[in-house]
Amino acid sequence: MNTRYALGMDFGTNSCRALIVDLEDGQELATSVFEYPSGDHGVLSDPKDPNVARQNPRDYTVGIEVTIKEAIERARDVRVSFDPSNIIGIGVDTTGSSPMAVDQYGIPLACLPEFEGDLDAMVWLWKDHSSYDEAARNTELAGRIRPQYLGKIGGVYSSEWFWSKILHCRNVAPHIFKAAASFVEFCDYIPALLTGDTRPGMIQRSVCAAGHKAMYNGAWGGLPDKEFLAALDPSLADLRDRLYSSVATADKRAGTLSPEWAEKLGLPRGIAVAVGAFDAHMGAVGASIREGTLVKILGTSTCDIMVWPSNRPLADIGGVCGIVDGSVLPGYLGIEAGQSAVGDIFLWFVNHLVPDSFGKTTEEKFRRLETLAAGQRVGEHGLLALDWNNGNRTVLVDVRLTGLLLGQTLHTQPYEIYRALIESTAFGALTIINRIEEFGVPIQEIVNCGGLASKNALLMQIYADVTGRPMKVSGSDQTPALGAAIFGAVAAGEEAGGFSNVRVAQEKMTRVGDTFNPDPTAHKVYQDLYRLYHQLHEAFGTKEWSGSMFNVMKDLLALRDRQRL
Amino acid sequence: MNTRYALGMDFGTNSCRALIVDLEDGQELATSVFEYPSGDHGVLSDPKDPNVARQNPRDYTVGIEVTIKEAIERARDVRVSFDPSNIIGIGVDTTGSSPMAVDQYGIPLACLPEFEGDLDAMVWLWKDHSSYDEAARNTELAGRIRPQYLGKIGGVYSSEWFWSKILHCRNVAPHIFKAAASFVEFCDYIPALLTGDTRPGMIQRSVCAAGHKAMYNGAWGGLPDKEFLAALDPSLADLRDRLYSSVATADKRAGTLSPEWAEKLGLPRGIAVAVGAFDAHMGAVGASIREGTLVKILGTSTCDIMVWPSNRPLADIGGVCGIVDGSVLPGYLGIEAGQSAVGDIFLWFVNHLVPDSFGKTTEEKFRRLETLAAGQRVGEHGLLALDWNNGNRTVLVDVRLTGLLLGQTLHTQPYEIYRALIESTAFGALTIINRIEEFGVPIQEIVNCGGLASKNALLMQIYADVTGRPMKVSGSDQTPALGAAIFGAVAAGEEAGGFSNVRVAQEKMTRVGDTFNPDPTAHKVYQDLYRLYHQLHEAFGTKEWSGSMFNVMKDLLALRDRQRL
Repeated sequence: MNTRYALGMDFGTNSCRALIVDLEDGQELATSVFEYPSGDHGVLSDPKDPNVARQNPRDYTVGIEVTIKEAIERARDVRVSFDPSNIIGIGVDTTGSSPMAVDQYGIPLACLPEFEGDLDAMVWLWKDHSSYDEAARNTELAGRIRPQYLGKIGGVYSSEWFWSKILHCRNVAPHIFKAAASFVEFCDYIPALLTGDTRPGMIQRSVCAAGHKAMYNGAWGGLPDKEFLAALDPSLADLRDRLYSSVATADKRAGTLSPEWAEKLGLPRGIAVAVGAFDAHMGAVGASIREGTLVKILGTSTCDIMVWPSNRPLADIGGVCGIVDGSVLPGYLGIEAGQSAVGDIFLWFVNHLVPDSFGKTTEEKFRRLETLAAGQRVGEHGLLALDWNNGNRTVLVDVRLTGLLLGQTLHTQPYEIYRALIESTAFGALTIINRIEEFGVPIQEIVNCGGLASKNALLMQIYADVTGRPMKVSGSDQTPALGAAIFGAVAAGEEAGGFSNVRVAQEKMTRVGDTFNPDPTAHKVYQDLYRLYHQLHEAFGTKEWSGSMFNVMKDLLALRDRQRL
Repeated sequence: MNTRYALGMDFGTNSCRALIVDLEDGQELATSVFEYPSGDHGVLSDPKDPNVARQNPRDYTVGIEVTIKEAIERARDVRVSFDPSNIIGIGVDTTGSSPMAVDQYGIPLACLPEFEGDLDAMVWLWKDHSSYDEAARNTELAGRIRPQYLGKIGGVYSSEWFWSKILHCRNVAPHIFKAAASFVEFCDYIPALLTGDTRPGMIQRSVCAAGHKAMYNGAWGGLPDKEFLAALDPSLADLRDRLYSSVATADKRAGTLSPEWAEKLGLPRGIAVAVGAFDAHMGAVGASIREGTLVKILGTSTCDIMVWPSNRPLADIGGVCGIVDGSVLPGYLGIEAGQSAVGDIFLWFVNHLVPDSFGKTTEEKFRRLETLAAGQRVGEHGLLALDWNNGNRTVLVDVRLTGLLLGQTLHTQPYEIYRALIESTAFGALTIINRIEEFGVPIQEIVNCGGLASKNALLMQIYADVTGRPMKVSGSDQTPALGAAIFGAVAAGEEAGGFSNVRVAQEKMTRVGDTFNPDPTAHKVYQDLYRLYHQLHEAFGTKEWSGSMFNVMKDLLALRDRQRL
């Protein structure tokens, strides 16, 4: 039998990527990246409102064609025997919640001449925060009349999510809302597009997007009920009928590749197109997630993913963003937590507060800071920071929090602050780990993926030392696309040369790379520092805390003096 | 009668200065500055101990000759009628506590061949912190057996002060201690030198140095008693007899200018040389201090000086560095408070944490930061800082405190942090003002002098807005030297064409320049911010405080959002 391949499509914030993977051993044969041409690196903004972040759906269509064709070319270059007719399935992940308004044929309103250039007709990108008022109303209403809705999303509905955005569209762009036959998530739109049928009623909706962002749950009959939606706004109750009443996991087919797309791309007709999901969730699959594994996707912000058997009881984990059946692996609850800013904090610091003596470019500065910070003993800098420059997602679920740095003297150096900032994100990570375990989900293994995991060895070592746990790094540095390819192969099925289920596919196609082991001496010191971090965390982050802060600077100086000897 | 002049000599950390002042109207006729040639800008350090800071007394001798001769030349250039024979008196201020070991003739051991190059034989500069252990022992012992000693110095004896340094010398350099006939403060040494008699027993000691730094007080018979000193170290009890038993205010003569110096400098023989004092205290006199006036000397750190009639009762003001009869004006208690770091915090920030896009040099960066920060509305940056990068002198008297910054987001700009740092020092200043007034000393007027007062208009305006009081700037930007000249003119006396007392001299010779008036709207917002600063101040700085911190970030964001509209 010929070697079979699957194709993973990963749609990020600034670019999309196609990846061709060998199903025999998971080898990543060829990849191609397409930078979105619209706006600023693919993001359309509104000079009048800094919260607005939109995307042009045309960028996606172009991106599919460019990247898949180029990946096929490259695969041919690296392997003479490669034949695209042996690609048996396609999986798709995207950012989210990133909904858009579509007409009755599923054509994005943004692509219709009458809405040409209308920002509100575009895709409302995940990081669009213009609907913060609507989010607050949603949280308030659910807390009052549907507390169960909040139980699965950590207690707070976000301005990044589906209903906030739709309602804000209704409020600020009624012409778009009225013209919309339905609203479709980015991750549902792409698979539908590839199958050749984007009619809203025919689109296979992803449980991942629906469950995590649209408060969809089988336990209460799918989407929020009409009474609730009407209380938000009567038009949303009407809209409910034009959305969806069933969802699917990503191991299922959205459909098969349409003849038009097959021809355009040089792929076989009729191959499986899997149901879509979000990048972090498919990334977790590409990073070998299974029961007991915490996958951390470390980027500008952080997404922490775990799974838990659906048939085993699990309490709502306070402060954890989402618990959704099947959002990661079929048959498992997907548990999603996260830190609102990690890499973004370092970028902010390096771009705004590091002099050019550390390097001419951001990258040079990072390298120099890392070298100098790595030379320090734990606690030698005497600093302690809170990683809240963008609020705190898990476990406090509070955007109205800010950064904090203390311990600075007249001698404090930028690389010391850099190290303290990395440590603050490690303490934040440990807080999430503790919270998940306190609610009865043991963590046996931690696998890290994303840019920071593969590029920042200092960060990985600090994470190991702070948590006292080995930090594994995923063997792939494109885990979302790899995860998507896995789902493509599972959706294709065994008979087509794919796999019967995700677990089997993961065993063949994923691996773990380097491991950073904790240094017990460093861990011991970090336990003391974490106690101080936790004290600040509780003091500034919770209503309940009350006590003295006098010890904080004293303890930190004493620890510093011990470590400097 | 010919126009009369006085000469003020100001010895700083890096240089000394001579100033010739017209006694008719206080016009500063001519000045000359000499940078000390030894060490790093005059400071000798020890690579093995970063706390060591010494000075070579030879630099002073050279400095006297160079600066006075040059000032005379310059005075001749600007005023044809100027004749040095009309200089009637010399006043001297120096840093302190800066003691040195001397032999029986008052020759600094540093100038003897057998101690050539011996750091411990040099002047122990005010900022030498090598004796922190000895300081702690002194505080502990006094607290136990002589609590009254601590009442006048804010409760804590410092490593910057006389007894700590002498005892440390005894401990680490017994050969110097043994060879020392006595120890002399820098501010006592220079006047003695000019009079031609430096024999320790003949030196007129300054009440300013003795009272503020050596626990000298008439109430307990002068220097600390022998029992106390012996408990510190028996050798100190022995030394007591070789120090001094009386002190004088700076309006008194230390003696008259020796024929040798008169000839060398081109000055009249026998003119008055006033008793010395510290730079800040004479600076306060040059800045028009009187009852009800707070003089703030704003530099790398800050010194706050007030006076209070000696015959009126005054409680020990908790946390205030020193209360000494006659240390500023005769007949008045001198009250000294201060902030451990002000300009130093800004320098640290600009030199370590501001990218070159703000300017190539430190000065360019400051200018750019000031322009941008001045464009902000109060509280718009959402930041709050504690000004403790070098500990807190007044009111907490605690070196074991550190800086704190909170409120930063992913958008926080360097100029916003710069503004927050200025504000933190203004809040620190307000805390001192409140403390002094709470103890019954009303402040009717605030006069600022020193580099920051004349150079940083943004800082002055923020100080006015934060305190809600007009900030006056001294008319002279060399107030210590001007103050010294005033004392020279008073020591010379009315009969020589000088003045009968300091008040009369001040009226003729000092003036106030610009005034920064508070903006009531800004002050109102700063009152809210100060409440939050005070909360952090008490929480991190006092053992007694206990409470919640949850409001801090919330209130700050709410205030920011209001101010951004």
